Amino acid sequence: MEHESTDIKGKFKLLFEPRSLAFLGASRDPQKWGFRILANIRIGKFEGKIYPVNPKGGEILGLKVYGSVGEIPETPDLAVIVVPPTSVVDAIKECTNKGIQAGVVITAGFAEIGKEGAKIQHDMVKAAQSGGMILVGPNSFGILNPSSKLHSQMPPIFPYPGPIAVLSQSGNLVATVARMVMAKGFGYSKGISSGNEAVLHSDDYLEYLADDPQTKVILSYIEGFKDGHRFFETAKKVTRKKPVIMLKAGETPAGARAAKSHTASLAGSDTIFEAMCKQAGIARVRNLEEFVNTGLAFLCHPLPQGRRVGIVTAGGGWGVLAADACAKLGLDVISLPDNTLRELDSFLPAWWNRGNPVDLVAGAFGDAMMKSVEVIMRCPVVDGVIMMGLMPAMPADFFHIPTTEEEGKKMREDIIAAAAHIFKEIKELTNTYQKPVVIASDPLFNSARTLAKLTYTLGDMNAVCYSIPQQAAAALANLAQYSEYLKQDNA
Amino acid sequence: MEHESTDIKGKFKLLFEPRSLAFLGASRDPQKWGFRILANIRIGKFEGKIYPVNPKGGEILGLKVYGSVGEIPETPDLAVIVVPPTSVVDAIKECTNKGIQAGVVITAGFAEIGKEGAKIQHDMVKAAQSGGMILVGPNSFGILNPSSKLHSQMPPIFPYPGPIAVLSQSGNLVATVARMVMAKGFGYSKGISSGNEAVLHSDDYLEYLADDPQTKVILSYIEGFKDGHRFFETAKKVTRKKPVIMLKAGETPAGARAAKSHTASLAGSDTIFEAMCKQAGIARVRNLEEFVNTGLAFLCHPLPQGRRVGIVTAGGGWGVLAADACAKLGLDVISLPDNTLRELDSFLPAWWNRGNPVDLVAGAFGDAMMKSVEVIMRCPVVDGVIMMGLMPAMPADFFHIPTTEEEGKKMREDIIAAAAHIFKEIKELTNTYQKPVVIASDPLFNSARTLAKLTYTLGDMNAVCYSIPQQAAAALANLAQYSEYLKQDNA
Repeated sequence: MEHESTDIKGKFKLLFEPRSLAFLGASRDPQKWGFRILANIRIGKFEGKIYPVNPKGGEILGLKVYGSVGEIPETPDLAVIVVPPTSVVDAIKECTNKGIQAGVVITAGFAEIGKEGAKIQHDMVKAAQSGGMILVGPNSFGILNPSSKLHSQMPPIFPYPGPIAVLSQSGNLVATVARMVMAKGFGYSKGISSGNEAVLHSDDYLEYLADDPQTKVILSYIEGFKDGHRFFETAKKVTRKKPVIMLKAGETPAGARAAKSHTASLAGSDTIFEAMCKQAGIARVRNLEEFVNTGLAFLCHPLPQGRRVGIVTAGGGWGVLAADACAKLGLDVISLPDNTLRELDSFLPAWWNRGNPVDLVAGAFGDAMMKSVEVIMRCPVVDGVIMMGLMPAMPADFFHIPTTEEEGKKMREDIIAAAAHIFKEIKELTNTYQKPVVIASDPLFNSARTLAKLTYTLGDMNAVCYSIPQQAAAALANLAQYSEYLKQDNA
Repeated sequence: MEHESTDIKGKFKLLFEPRSLAFLGASRDPQKWGFRILANIRIGKFEGKIYPVNPKGGEILGLKVYGSVGEIPETPDLAVIVVPPTSVVDAIKECTNKGIQAGVVITAGFAEIGKEGAKIQHDMVKAAQSGGMILVGPNSFGILNPSSKLHSQMPPIFPYPGPIAVLSQSGNLVATVARMVMAKGFGYSKGISSGNEAVLHSDDYLEYLADDPQTKVILSYIEGFKDGHRFFETAKKVTRKKPVIMLKAGETPAGARAAKSHTASLAGSDTIFEAMCKQAGIARVRNLEEFVNTGLAFLCHPLPQGRRVGIVTAGGGWGVLAADACAKLGLDVISLPDNTLRELDSFLPAWWNRGNPVDLVAGAFGDAMMKSVEVIMRCPVVDGVIMMGLMPAMPADFFHIPTTEEEGKKMREDIIAAAAHIFKEIKELTNTYQKPVVIASDPLFNSARTLAKLTYTLGDMNAVCYSIPQQAAAALANLAQYSEYLKQDNA
């Protein structure tokens, strides 16, 4: 959108840190979004004033309902708009007349459904622009900012505050990613469903997030661009400040058709998109799992100085799969130098494989794994390490069979503490050698609940444990690529 | 190996359904495999006689230890061998002298460590063959057959009986896959770590598993072949009987080097391997997650008659990602015929997207999703369906906020039951229309434990819920490819 940059910053503050909000289209029917979203705002414990608006007046969820925006006794910072599509233009005019400068249009039924909707969308944009109002949407599932207790979104999902911003042209993916991120023990800085992007475009949000101190990494799901050139020019600046990970839909004609009917997006050429990502330093991923895992990788590890990787594994199969995955992703599974091999010889069993992956085979218990990782980290021709298997890094005499319920509970807590200690040691080594160590492991527990506890414990330490070798290799490869990008003179 | 097929069948029965076993290399030291594996056999409640063997005699784990195999009062069906590598040849000779015809050599330190080991391995093969003994390994983590309560394997993992056979040249992957399969609520028919394959080769096991009534699907992790031609000739016959899914390591030079030092395997050309898989009807997968998911797909769904897919989604982003994933995997996201669109018009809200994916948008609650799935299944130009989102298929007035702990518990149970009911309905539709419906969904619970309960409930129904669109598309694509293969006249 057209704007002066000082102005837009202030409006974005109104959008994401409102002190008060008007809710246009408030409803008493629990099946309607006009009720559900208002309920989410209440459940999320929004601390500012909330002004529900509905011509019928009355009271909803304990809040006085205003017959019109004009009747609200102050100018709210934000308007959340859930009225039917045919009423949206009037709603915007009501808002701008009141002096409201930021809005979220949840309502769908615009450009994504064809000509008629496109006409309304066009009129809506005119109304917003002439009134100096910035708008999220339409066809948005809403926005959320946990640190401001703002949860103006459709699904009842409440991620805690954290370092991850999600900017998505699909609302449900904001929720899907939130669930995935929460399951790993991490939180959200901002969640943005940009919808049809009639007023605010992806690049506007990107610019805002680049300077948002709470956001350490940006995950962006994109179906298409209004102005690809401008987007990538913006992205280029943003990736200098923080990593941007992008999942692009509409890679194929079938996907592109689906994207068009979803958010009226034109997906464009995938080859061009790929090239643009490279030039802009964007980490492009191919599915939802890699999307989240790559985000976590940037949060949990320093960048490697190159692509040379050392692998330490407690099982041959994991080692072979990791080596394959590394090679396919352009990482270099180097031959370890003689003095490194000799150092490993000094404490590994005679039959160790003397290669990379360093395979501890089934005979090495206790601290052999941690010692091996440190030797590899110290090796000057290694830029990053993949460590596979938590169990073998545990103290050798650690496991016993509990005989009472209490003992079992204590044992589980001890295992969680021991695993956390491994990650702590790795963090210290990482600080010493300034090289990333990416860890993947079989789960330490069969119990889903205990496993989740461990995962949350790691999340609180800003650490992540991947579950298969390929995920670890992909994490490291994405870090290496971003590191290379940042080093480019011409970038 | 060389054998008459009648003979080998009997020996395989001794291997996997032994009525008694000798355990050579039994140890009293809990750090040694000679103790740990014996403990696993005990924990697994093996019902036959167990004869630990160690020259020192005495008692281990409440079992009398025999000074030599010769002293055992009967001829055990199976020998599990954990003695040091230099003693293996003698151990085999002791066994064959006693008339034992089947053995598992856990011991490592053979061809995988170089010339010296290769020499011992060669001698071991000679001894086994001249004594008419079949051998798993060496360098094997063991074998397991839950339905016979046989758990002669290194890690303490006890999958319950089920339809999945895992044949792996990496022992730790047998355990990794077991954990993944168990987490999905499924069980093992057989677990085989084939190790260096000095005597029994992958194709021998494959042949056995093809006729094993407990095995419905075979997952095979391969690092290389002794005789690739023979393997694929065997595989061709096996895939006529049941699906074979293969994860091949050593795809890259780095992986191939790692494979050589792991199991002395020569990985060979990946291009040739790929072509051979196609010709033999093997479903080739690229990572551990797809390995397990593809196995489950074959267990849970009928084969589609073609590649034409209909997608029903409750969220646009999921729909676009699914369409992309389908197209990339060679599935055809067809245009739905007019009469199908009209049928959907009759109950979907006016603003539905009238396309494929059928996007129910945010406004369709209750049974709209199940009705849409049935309409798509009935559509004659659709071969298989992808359904995304369980939540929107739940009854509209289902969710409420529990106010007591008991109510919360009841609510969780109700949700699990409702989700199971959806899968039951889908199973019925599947029976009616003989078309697969593959389901992916956001998790229904934040609680890991409750989510695991739902997963186990589905596993008990022989059903699986995938977590991201790509997994669902990959499952369907693998089913379609196998279906096409089976239809080929010349295959």
